Amino acid sequence: MTTPHRRDPDRLLPADPRTRAVARALYERVAGAPIVSPHGHVPIEWLAEDRPFADAAGLLVSNDHYVTRLLHASGVDLADLGVGGASADPREAWRIFASNWHIFAGTASGYWIEDELAGVLGVSDPPSAAHADSLFDQIGEKLATPEFRPRALFERFGIEVLATTDDPLEDLAKHDVVAGSGLRGRVLPTFRPDRYLDPAAPMFASDVRRLLDLTGEPATFSGYLSALESRREHFIRHGAVSADHGVEDPATFDIDDAEAELLFQASLAGTADASQQRVFRGHMLLQMARMSVEDGLVMTVHAGVVRNHSSHTHRQFGADTGHDIPRRTDFVGGLRPLLERFGLEKQFHLVLFAVDETVYSREIAPLAGFYPSVFIGAPWWFLDAPDAMARFRSAVTETAGFSRGSGFIDDTRAFLSIPARHDTSRRADASFLARLVVEGRLTENVAGAIIDDIVGPQPKRVFKL
Amino acid sequence: MTTPHRRDPDRLLPADPRTRAVARALYERVAGAPIVSPHGHVPIEWLAEDRPFADAAGLLVSNDHYVTRLLHASGVDLADLGVGGASADPREAWRIFASNWHIFAGTASGYWIEDELAGVLGVSDPPSAAHADSLFDQIGEKLATPEFRPRALFERFGIEVLATTDDPLEDLAKHDVVAGSGLRGRVLPTFRPDRYLDPAAPMFASDVRRLLDLTGEPATFSGYLSALESRREHFIRHGAVSADHGVEDPATFDIDDAEAELLFQASLAGTADASQQRVFRGHMLLQMARMSVEDGLVMTVHAGVVRNHSSHTHRQFGADTGHDIPRRTDFVGGLRPLLERFGLEKQFHLVLFAVDETVYSREIAPLAGFYPSVFIGAPWWFLDAPDAMARFRSAVTETAGFSRGSGFIDDTRAFLSIPARHDTSRRADASFLARLVVEGRLTENVAGAIIDDIVGPQPKRVFKL
Amino acid sequence: MTTPHRRDPDRLLPADPRTRAVARALYERVAGAPIVSPHGHVPIEWLAEDRPFADAAGLLVSNDHYVTRLLHASGVDLADLGVGGASADPREAWRIFASNWHIFAGTASGYWIEDELAGVLGVSDPPSAAHADSLFDQIGEKLATPEFRPRALFERFGIEVLATTDDPLEDLAKHDVVAGSGLRGRVLPTFRPDRYLDPAAPMFASDVRRLLDLTGEPATFSGYLSALESRREHFIRHGAVSADHGVEDPATFDIDDAEAELLFQASLAGTADASQQRVFRGHMLLQMARMSVEDGLVMTVHAGVVRNHSSHTHRQFGADTGHDIPRRTDFVGGLRPLLERFGLEKQFHLVLFAVDETVYSREIAPLAGFYPSVFIGAPWWFLDAPDAMARFRSAVTETAGFSRGSGFIDDTRAFLSIPARHDTSRRADASFLARLVVEGRLTENVAGAIIDDIVGPQPKRVFKL
Repeated sequence: MTTPHRRDPDRLLPADPRTRAVARALYERVAGAPIVSPHGHVPIEWLAEDRPFADAAGLLVSNDHYVTRLLHASGVDLADLGVGGASADPREAWRIFASNWHIFAGTASGYWIEDELAGVLGVSDPPSAAHADSLFDQIGEKLATPEFRPRALFERFGIEVLATTDDPLEDLAKHDVVAGSGLRGRVLPTFRPDRYLDPAAPMFASDVRRLLDLTGEPATFSGYLSALESRREHFIRHGAVSADHGVEDPATFDIDDAEAELLFQASLAGTADASQQRVFRGHMLLQMARMSVEDGLVMTVHAGVVRNHSSHTHRQFGADTGHDIPRRTDFVGGLRPLLERFGLEKQFHLVLFAVDETVYSREIAPLAGFYPSVFIGAPWWFLDAPDAMARFRSAVTETAGFSRGSGFIDDTRAFLSIPARHDTSRRADASFLARLVVEGRLTENVAGAIIDDIVGPQPKRVFKL
Repeated sequence: MTTPHRRDPDRLLPADPRTRAVARALYERVAGAPIVSPHGHVPIEWLAEDRPFADAAGLLVSNDHYVTRLLHASGVDLADLGVGGASADPREAWRIFASNWHIFAGTASGYWIEDELAGVLGVSDPPSAAHADSLFDQIGEKLATPEFRPRALFERFGIEVLATTDDPLEDLAKHDVVAGSGLRGRVLPTFRPDRYLDPAAPMFASDVRRLLDLTGEPATFSGYLSALESRREHFIRHGAVSADHGVEDPATFDIDDAEAELLFQASLAGTADASQQRVFRGHMLLQMARMSVEDGLVMTVHAGVVRNHSSHTHRQFGADTGHDIPRRTDFVGGLRPLLERFGLEKQFHLVLFAVDETVYSREIAPLAGFYPSVFIGAPWWFLDAPDAMARFRSAVTETAGFSRGSGFIDDTRAFLSIPARHDTSRRADASFLARLVVEGRLTENVAGAIIDDIVGPQPKRVFKL
Repeated sequence: MTTPHRRDPDRLLPADPRTRAVARALYERVAGAPIVSPHGHVPIEWLAEDRPFADAAGLLVSNDHYVTRLLHASGVDLADLGVGGASADPREAWRIFASNWHIFAGTASGYWIEDELAGVLGVSDPPSAAHADSLFDQIGEKLATPEFRPRALFERFGIEVLATTDDPLEDLAKHDVVAGSGLRGRVLPTFRPDRYLDPAAPMFASDVRRLLDLTGEPATFSGYLSALESRREHFIRHGAVSADHGVEDPATFDIDDAEAELLFQASLAGTADASQQRVFRGHMLLQMARMSVEDGLVMTVHAGVVRNHSSHTHRQFGADTGHDIPRRTDFVGGLRPLLERFGLEKQFHLVLFAVDETVYSREIAPLAGFYPSVFIGAPWWFLDAPDAMARFRSAVTETAGFSRGSGFIDDTRAFLSIPARHDTSRRADASFLARLVVEGRLTENVAGAIIDDIVGPQPKRVFKL
């Protein structure tokens, strides 16, 4: 049913002919630029082992919670899609997806998948019940060829840098394998310590014990800090440039060591109450900033998502299964203790990502327009789509310009969607800049210099690449 | 002074010529489609009794709090407009309105009234001090003719389904009269139990006593639940498909029966404090969801309005007199207990309406994009206007597509505005879809299928019509 | 690097040719209208003493925290820019600014400065490292001429009314000097009592003592109220039409005199805790409304800014140095006690300014669309820019029309930017209105009448000028 103008060369560009012409020229400057992806979730195994992708369902459906969530909303059982390791027949899962393809019309996921099908996989029919099997087979045949193995795609996509997201206790041996594989492009680990910092996390005490065991540190607050510092060093030695922090609430607290020690011991013992857990968690976010100031890792903070909103689904299918839901976020009050301590440090880079878009004009642009450490994270997750990108640029630019942005972040596990996502961002930025040109607010030359910067130099600068 | 292009056939369509052409074609597909109105406030008496409307002031001014509120802001006394049963000369009220007509320029109300005057009443002059009397007379003459009586207008408007909003203790005899009248189109009651669920409501105890008396249930929590269930059954027998809930705060609480009994008795006795009232009210919202799961009534929740902001006006003129003011709303935290219990029930339909538009991208689209029970309520009340509709579509579509919407809801007591409101929504949707087409994100065929669905099949599906 | 179409006559107008033509015609009606500026921060000394401006850095950089903040974010030390009285070489400060000019691309500040350079100062090169010195010299030469002294510029700008912002203890002698100087245009003081109303302000007790000393009132709550009333009278005698209130949180409290007396004494003694301070501060906002009802001063409330977010910067450079950051704002709950008391007073004018733009559609338009006292403050501070203005008009108009607005407020200390700011607003309004015309929602005649009203009669009406 949905057969968009496949590969309309002007897709996503503004309707007004004069603006579109300017946007097209801007887009064409950067359409082929290498991809810099300083934050995402591609499993390092894929690149280390370079095994062929199994099938269309595993590649485009089962592991993409953007896709499975909307199917679930339409009444599909997650088990039938193979979510969370459920055993589902991939062909059946694909049929379900294909016969529900119409629900993706107008969505970011629908757009990316069209781009992937046409641009990466080279199949021309859109998904449908009628063509489900033939599409599944066509894609399966492609995936079996050497050209569609992960490393070949990585190079075909023109990826210059790709960061993975990793547990602090990882030995990062697979990153070494990739580094030694001759792959054209860098693949970097990212330090993601959430589960070791939040006393309310289900395995906190045992996770911290494993951390202390691995590093040989004692079970004191200072031992714990040293253990984290030592794992950060390990990551830095393996090429990491950033540490990533996902928090529901970006509250930070600046407490003294004695209080931290008490909260640490209570947290380990499981006796900390919710308010103590909140203070400890918020203090550890501040400690992470302190470590970033000292060791130079860029600090990224993703805030404002209630994880696992449906307990039943979480129990049955695990985390990251499509029911993480945004909430209101307060960066201005929450981060103040952190910024009071470290906000003026010029070598400190703190990138703020939000899913509550009200903070763009109200909080993030004003913070990034003053603190040399604060950068405006690209629109992320639910906001990673053309209209949301336009709202984002409109909300932040008049206060903070273009220089305070992070560059585009794909944040994805959906490997095949990486080119589509970066391309979307480039088209969105070209469209926004073109409007400013036509409105007499920028010259085409200036707009060109800005878009050139956004796609490469900017993320390299912000992420110290 | 204000003489807009009366009946510009392209009104509300986008300026860009190519986009406008696509929008026009989409609009024309659905311009004449029957009206499905599953939630509104037309008094059933109008259709049961079919008496002629008295005059222009009663019809277009005194009973429309959208209109009287803005006149009040401009310094007009509500009493002079006949608000809240105040005795005012209708001709004088109309003169006040007509001489203030310029303040409605650019408003939703102004747009609807223009459409009503030109499209329904067939008068060509815009309101003005100079023409006030002649307009009043022209309209009065029309209203005296059979063609302008409620049932004739109902059929002329092409209404296929119209839901009223009714007190749970109503016998619904008037709905039976309408059903037996041969009217082309269904008129359904809607169960609206707010006053029986909120211990803070001024008449809560006596209202609940009346409910228990009518149903013969004892004054226990379980008797109270049974009484509500029995009235829902009564409504269902008279054709109701939904139960509507207006709450300031959509907080829900999952408490056990013993605690509920205690809170119920304290609420009846008037000894419950504000916090207990809040828990009881929130638990009753959850109980209403439980009943909807059991009896199949669609549950609509309108949240986030502070009712009767001006106590003085409330005392003098009563409720619904234009000073209900939105506040921040938290659906994600508030509804979580309800959704933990019932969110995954596939036969449960929960439609969420907001007047805090920040929740569209942050909360409602993500919830409706995962929970099969949750649907995205159309922009409502202050947001029921072309620009707000465009912002709404932009905010929700990239996350949740079009399939998770409720279809348009006019929510109105202003009977003559029903065609204008549905027409506005159709033009707004055509405009949004046309942009996606021109931006290469949808084909015209797909966009056409979507708009066909939105105006009829979608609300019928969501409201189980 | 950034050379926008200098003085593109169509700048900021919409791209679509038909809409642009309508917008241009609307803009041209008001392009040359006199400037009415009822709230701003131009130092009265400039107009009283009429001394030449010293140099480009002092005029365009050091004193404009919009400019210095973004330079600071880019790594520049505020001291090197001469912020907060730091001794910096003006030419060096200018070089820093000029060599960082590219970071202002797309910002409101960048746009204004371009307009100032081309339109006021008549220099053609954009700032750049290469041209920094020659620009500095060119501007310096102009500033030394009589045509560029403050009063000459005031008249050249066509300012009809300009309000300054003043401490309640000011004798306002300088305003008398200006009034007697033969300047074409009125310059009015504005009563700004924040520091005397907030017990948490650093100098509250000593400031109140000074207030009581000056007015000869006793240190009782009623003496304190009388002292404030008497200073308001002093301002009114010197032409003031409004009292301005900047608050982080617009909470108000209606307490009795006995409680107020207790809180007043505790506040003077420094023993009030944070919660008592909040109540007192909120009660004083309500008292200010009471005084406005009695003496007729228009009450403006600027809410929602966390002042001096960076303590370190505040200690080193003082207030107003670019790190005041917005926060979420609640007008609907916060102002309710005030509006319950005074909201229906027709002679009371309360203008609400926000930097949390979510309140536009949710709170301010609904409040101003009912209460005759409430007016919608123009987009302000971070929202004082073309895209933000478009979002503002879209958010408020469908609910409240155009009649409930304040007219444009420049709120600026940057004297040379006054024409650019008012011109931006006129272009933005013309663009918004033109879209409504092209969408068949307004006739050109009506749109013309609206824009004529907005630029002059409206602010004069709202500010009782």
